[in-house]
Amino acid sequence: MADPASTPPTQSISRFSVPDLATLPDDIRARIQEVQDKAGFVPNMFLVLARRPDEFRAFFAYHDALMLKDGGLTKGEREMIVVATSGANQCHYCVIVHGAILRIYEKRPLIADQIAVNHRKADLTPRQHAMLGFAMKVALRSAEIEDADFARLREHGFSDEDAWDIAAIAAFFAMSNRIANTASMRPNDEFYLMGRLPRKSGA
Amino acid sequence: MADPASTPPTQSISRFSVPDLATLPDDIRARIQEVQDKAGFVPNMFLVLARRPDEFRAFFAYHDALMLKDGGLTKGEREMIVVATSGANQCHYCVIVHGAILRIYEKRPLIADQIAVNHRKADLTPRQHAMLGFAMKVALRSAEIEDADFARLREHGFSDEDAWDIAAIAAFFAMSNRIANTASMRPNDEFYLMGRLPRKSGA
Amino acid sequence: MADPASTPPTQSISRFSVPDLATLPDDIRARIQEVQDKAGFVPNMFLVLARRPDEFRAFFAYHDALMLKDGGLTKGEREMIVVATSGANQCHYCVIVHGAILRIYEKRPLIADQIAVNHRKADLTPRQHAMLGFAMKVALRSAEIEDADFARLREHGFSDEDAWDIAAIAAFFAMSNRIANTASMRPNDEFYLMGRLPRKSGA
Amino acid sequence: MADPASTPPTQSISRFSVPDLATLPDDIRARIQEVQDKAGFVPNMFLVLARRPDEFRAFFAYHDALMLKDGGLTKGEREMIVVATSGANQCHYCVIVHGAILRIYEKRPLIADQIAVNHRKADLTPRQHAMLGFAMKVALRSAEIEDADFARLREHGFSDEDAWDIAAIAAFFAMSNRIANTASMRPNDEFYLMGRLPRKSGA
Amino acid sequence: MADPASTPPTQSISRFSVPDLATLPDDIRARIQEVQDKAGFVPNMFLVLARRPDEFRAFFAYHDALMLKDGGLTKGEREMIVVATSGANQCHYCVIVHGAILRIYEKRPLIADQIAVNHRKADLTPRQHAMLGFAMKVALRSAEIEDADFARLREHGFSDEDAWDIAAIAAFFAMSNRIANTASMRPNDEFYLMGRLPRKSGA
Amino acid sequence: MADPASTPPTQSISRFSVPDLATLPDDIRARIQEVQDKAGFVPNMFLVLARRPDEFRAFFAYHDALMLKDGGLTKGEREMIVVATSGANQCHYCVIVHGAILRIYEKRPLIADQIAVNHRKADLTPRQHAMLGFAMKVALRSAEIEDADFARLREHGFSDEDAWDIAAIAAFFAMSNRIANTASMRPNDEFYLMGRLPRKSGA
Repeated sequence: MADPASTPPTQSISRFSVPDLATLPDDIRARIQEVQDKAGFVPNMFLVLARRPDEFRAFFAYHDALMLKDGGLTKGEREMIVVATSGANQCHYCVIVHGAILRIYEKRPLIADQIAVNHRKADLTPRQHAMLGFAMKVALRSAEIEDADFARLREHGFSDEDAWDIAAIAAFFAMSNRIANTASMRPNDEFYLMGRLPRKSGA
Repeated sequence: MADPASTPPTQSISRFSVPDLATLPDDIRARIQEVQDKAGFVPNMFLVLARRPDEFRAFFAYHDALMLKDGGLTKGEREMIVVATSGANQCHYCVIVHGAILRIYEKRPLIADQIAVNHRKADLTPRQHAMLGFAMKVALRSAEIEDADFARLREHGFSDEDAWDIAAIAAFFAMSNRIANTASMRPNDEFYLMGRLPRKSGA
Repeated sequence: MADPASTPPTQSISRFSVPDLATLPDDIRARIQEVQDKAGFVPNMFLVLARRPDEFRAFFAYHDALMLKDGGLTKGEREMIVVATSGANQCHYCVIVHGAILRIYEKRPLIADQIAVNHRKADLTPRQHAMLGFAMKVALRSAEIEDADFARLREHGFSDEDAWDIAAIAAFFAMSNRIANTASMRPNDEFYLMGRLPRKSGA
Repeated sequence: MADPASTPPTQSISRFSVPDLATLPDDIRARIQEVQDKAGFVPNMFLVLARRPDEFRAFFAYHDALMLKDGGLTKGEREMIVVATSGANQCHYCVIVHGAILRIYEKRPLIADQIAVNHRKADLTPRQHAMLGFAMKVALRSAEIEDADFARLREHGFSDEDAWDIAAIAAFFAMSNRIANTASMRPNDEFYLMGRLPRKSGA
Repeated sequence: MADPASTPPTQSISRFSVPDLATLPDDIRARIQEVQDKAGFVPNMFLVLARRPDEFRAFFAYHDALMLKDGGLTKGEREMIVVATSGANQCHYCVIVHGAILRIYEKRPLIADQIAVNHRKADLTPRQHAMLGFAMKVALRSAEIEDADFARLREHGFSDEDAWDIAAIAAFFAMSNRIANTASMRPNDEFYLMGRLPRKSGA
Repeated sequence: MADPASTPPTQSISRFSVPDLATLPDDIRARIQEVQDKAGFVPNMFLVLARRPDEFRAFFAYHDALMLKDGGLTKGEREMIVVATSGANQCHYCVIVHGAILRIYEKRPLIADQIAVNHRKADLTPRQHAMLGFAMKVALRSAEIEDADFARLREHGFSDEDAWDIAAIAAFFAMSNRIANTASMRPNDEFYLMGRLPRKSGA
C-alpha cells in the first residue's frame, strides 16, 4: 500500500461509503499521507472519517489535544483509558487499534489484552487502577460522579488537571466508540499483531 | 453581564477552576464575545471549556460541523437528538441548554420537556420517532447496531448521510454529556425559561 | 373550559376511553368541579381515572393522605420525591404535573427541572439529598433496602415517621407512574409553564 | 391468636413500630377482626399498615376495587399477576401471602411457586402467558409500553377493561411491594403451607 | 413409579428427548436405581441428563464433590447457596428441588422460600448472610470479586477452603441453572411439598 | 519448565494456595505431565484446580466430554462459544487461553480478538452468528430461552444435539469463568501470542 491515494476503498471497512482519496481536500490528504509514511499503512478510521472533512479535522484536532499533550499521565496511561473504556463499550476498532498503540508505548505485550478483558485483573499500579476506576465511571455512569471520586484520585497523587484529562479521554472515546460501532468500522489487520513480539535490538 | 471578559468566574458553574477571560487566547475570547453579543450572556460551557483552549477549539468546531450544517435533518431535529440522548445520560447541562435551543428552533414550548422525559410519548412524526429510536440505540447500546437499524431508517426516508448525522450527533453528545457530568457543569439560569413564552409579534 | 362536565373527552389524553362527566357519580363530579374551580382547569388524570370510580376514590384518598398531611417533610419536599422518582420511571405525566406543583410550593422556578434530570446536581440541602437518595432506592431497588439506609436518614434528622413518608410517597408514585405510562396519560398544556415566572406582587 | 386486639405487636414483623390494636379507630379494628374471623389469624400487613389509618383505608379500598371486582379476569388470574410481579420485585411478603391465595383460588398447589420463580415456565394457558407478559412490562419497563402491547392482548381476547385491570394490579403491587420491602414486612408463618395440601372431601 | 427403567419418558420434563432407561449404560442405570430406591422416585434431572452419559457422570461427580463433602459449611448451608443463586437465575428446577432438600437438611419448612425470594430477608445468621452475599456476587458479578470480599468472609470466620466451596457451589449451579433453563427442565411434583410438614415422631 | 512437578507454585497465578505437585494423586500428576509434554508448559488452571483432586477430575472429564467430542460443531466452533461467553463474563483467563486455542484450531489469527470484543462484528458465517447468539442468551439470560430460539437454530441447520452442545458449552464456561474470576486465575504468558504468527511449513 505504497500510495494512500490509490488505496482501494472497500465496503468492508465501514457501513458507509469510503471516499476516493484523490477527491479529498489537500489538508486531509496530507494528514493521511503523513500517517501512511509513518506507519506504513493507513489506519481505516482515517479513510472512514474522510467522507466528512470538517468532522475529520475536528476529530483529529481533539484527539491530538488529548492524547499527545504533556501532563501528569504518560502516553501509555492515556491509551490504557482508551482500551479499558472501549472494551466496556465493545468497540472492536478501538480495542484492536489502541491495544496495539498501548503495547508499543508501554513495551509490554500482554497489558492491552488484560485491560480490554477486565482492567481489575491487569498488571497495573494502584495509581493506574484508580485512574481506570474513574475513567470507567465516566464512561458508564457519569451522572453518578461525585466529589468522593475526585478525592480518591487525589489520594493517588492525581491533580485536577489529571482528573480532567482522564475524564476528557474517556468522554472522547465514548464518542469515538459510538461512531466506530455505528459504522461497523474494521481495524486494519496489521494492528492485531503489533507490539506483541520482542523488539529486535536496534529497532 | 455587559462584558464577558469581566465575568466573575465562579466555582459553582464547574468542579474545575474557570479561567480569567482576560488571560485567554484572542480567538477564544472573540468566540465568547460573539456568543455574548448574540445571546446577551455567555453559556457556561464556553467558560468551563476555555481552560483548555485546544479542546475548546476542537469541541466547537466539531459541534458546528454537526449542528449547523445543511442536510436532511432540520436544526430542530438535530436538537431533538441532543435532548433525548442527554436525558438518557442524565446530563443536567445539556438537557436544559439544548432544551431551550430546541424550543426556539421548533417554536414549540412543550416539545423539549416531552422528549427529555420519554421521547416515545412526545408529539413527533413517525419519522422523528424513528430518528430518536436510532439515536438512543447509538447512545445506549451502540455495540448492537445492525443492518436492520439502517433499513428501518430508510423506510422513513432517511439517507445514509442522515444516518451518519444522527449517529454522529448522538456520539458527540455522549462525549459532551460525560464532560458536563464530570465537571458538574451548571446551566445558566436564563436557559430554563427560554422559548417557553409565546413570541411577541415582530420578535 | 368553564364547566368540567362539558369538557370534551378526547382520545389523546389517554389510551383508554374517557367518560362523559355527566354520567359520573356525584362525588366524583364534585371532586372534579372542586379542582376545576381551584386550578381553572381539570388535570387530565382526574378525567382518565374517573372511568373507574372506586379506583378514583381510593387513588385520591391515598394521594391526599400522603401529600397533604402534616409531618417532618414540607409539601415541597414531598413533591421533590415525586419528581425525582417519576423522572427515573420516565413518567411524562407526573414529571410535568408535579414539577409544576413543586415550583409553586417552593417558589423556585428551576428546582423541578434540576431534580427531574439528575437529583444529585440539584440545588438542595444535604438533608434533602439524603431524602431523595432513600426515595430513589425505594423506587428502583427496594429489595436491597437495609438498616444502614435508615441510619443514614437518622443522621440527617429524619424520624421513623419521616422515613415511612418518604417510602410511602415513592411507592405510591411507583404505582401512579405505571398507570400513567400504560394509559399514555398526557399532562395538560397549562402545567409546563406553571411556576416558572416570577409571581407578581399581591399574587 | 383468638383476639386480634390482644395480639402482641412484635418488632419482627416490621422495621416500624406496630400499634396496639386497642388504640385503633373502630373501623380499622373492625376490618382486622373481620379478617381474623375469616382466616383464623391476622395477616401481618393489616397490623403493619394500621399505624397509618388513612393509608390503611385507602390501601384496602384500592386493593378490593382491583382484586375482588368482577370482570374478564378470574380472581385466580389477578393473583397470578401479583405473584409474578412480586417475584420480580423480590417482595418476600407478597410472594408468600399472594402465593397462598393463588393456590387456594386455583386449587392448584404448584402454580404459585412456578410463577414466582419464572412465569415463562409455569403451567398456564397462552392467554395467561400473554397476561403476565404485559403485567411484567408494566412492572419493570412501563415507559416502553406501546400500542403493540395492547394489540397482543387483544389477540388473546382481552378487552380494554381487562388491559386496565392487568396494568392497575401490576401498578398497585409495585406500590405494595415497595412498602413491604421498606418495612421488611414478614409474612405470617401460616401462609407458607396454605393451599399446598389436597383438600379433604367436603372442605 | 416402582421401577425407574419402566418410567415413561415424557416430553414435558424437557425440551430434549428423554432416553429409554433400558438402553442406558449400566452405571447410569444403577445410579438412577439408587436414587429411586432412596427417594421413592427419580428426580427428572437424572432422566434429562442421561441422554449424555459422559456429561451425566461428570455432572454428578462434580455435584457430589461439592455438595456431599465435609468442611466448614454444613450441607444445609451448601443448599442455601444453591437456592439463593438459582432464584437469581430464575431456575425453576433448581429452586424447587434444592428448596426441598434445604428444608429437609435444615428441618425448617420456611427457609427455602425466604431465600429464594430475597435472601436478605431470610432468617439467617450474620455469618450465613455473609456467605450468601459472596455467593450472589460470584453468581452475578464475578468479574468484580476483589480481595475485600475475601476479607469480609474471614471476619465471619470463613477459611480460604470455605471461600472456595462457596464460590465453587455458586459456579456449579451457574452451569446447572443454565442447562435446566435451556432444557426447560421440570421438577417432579413431589418436591414442592417435601419438608414442609412437621416430621412425625420417630421419622 | 521441563518437569511440572518442580514448577514453583507462585501466589500470583491464583488467590488460593497452589499445591506442590509432588504431593498430588498419581492420576492428577499424570494428566498434568501429559499436558506439559504436549504443550511444553502447564496451563495454570491445571495447577490451580489440582488443590481439589475430585473437582479437578470432574472438571476435566466434563470439559473433554463437551469440547473434544464429535458432532455438528467443529472444535473451532466450540471454542468460539467459549471466547464469546467468556468475554461477556469478563473472564481474563478463559478469553486469553481459549482465544489461543481458537486461533490454532481455526488457523485464523484475528478471529479470537474479534469474538472476544464483539462477536457481532466478527468474520463469521450466518450459521456461526446464530450459534453465538444462542450461546450468549444461555450465558446471560437463560431464563428467557424460548421455543423460538430453537426454531432459529434449526433454520441454520442445527440439530437438537447441536443445540444441546451449544447450551452445555456456554453453561460449562459460565461455571469455569466464575471459578477463574473468583480465584483471579492468571493465564500463562505463552497463550497471548499463540496462534498469531503464520505457521512455518512443516510445523
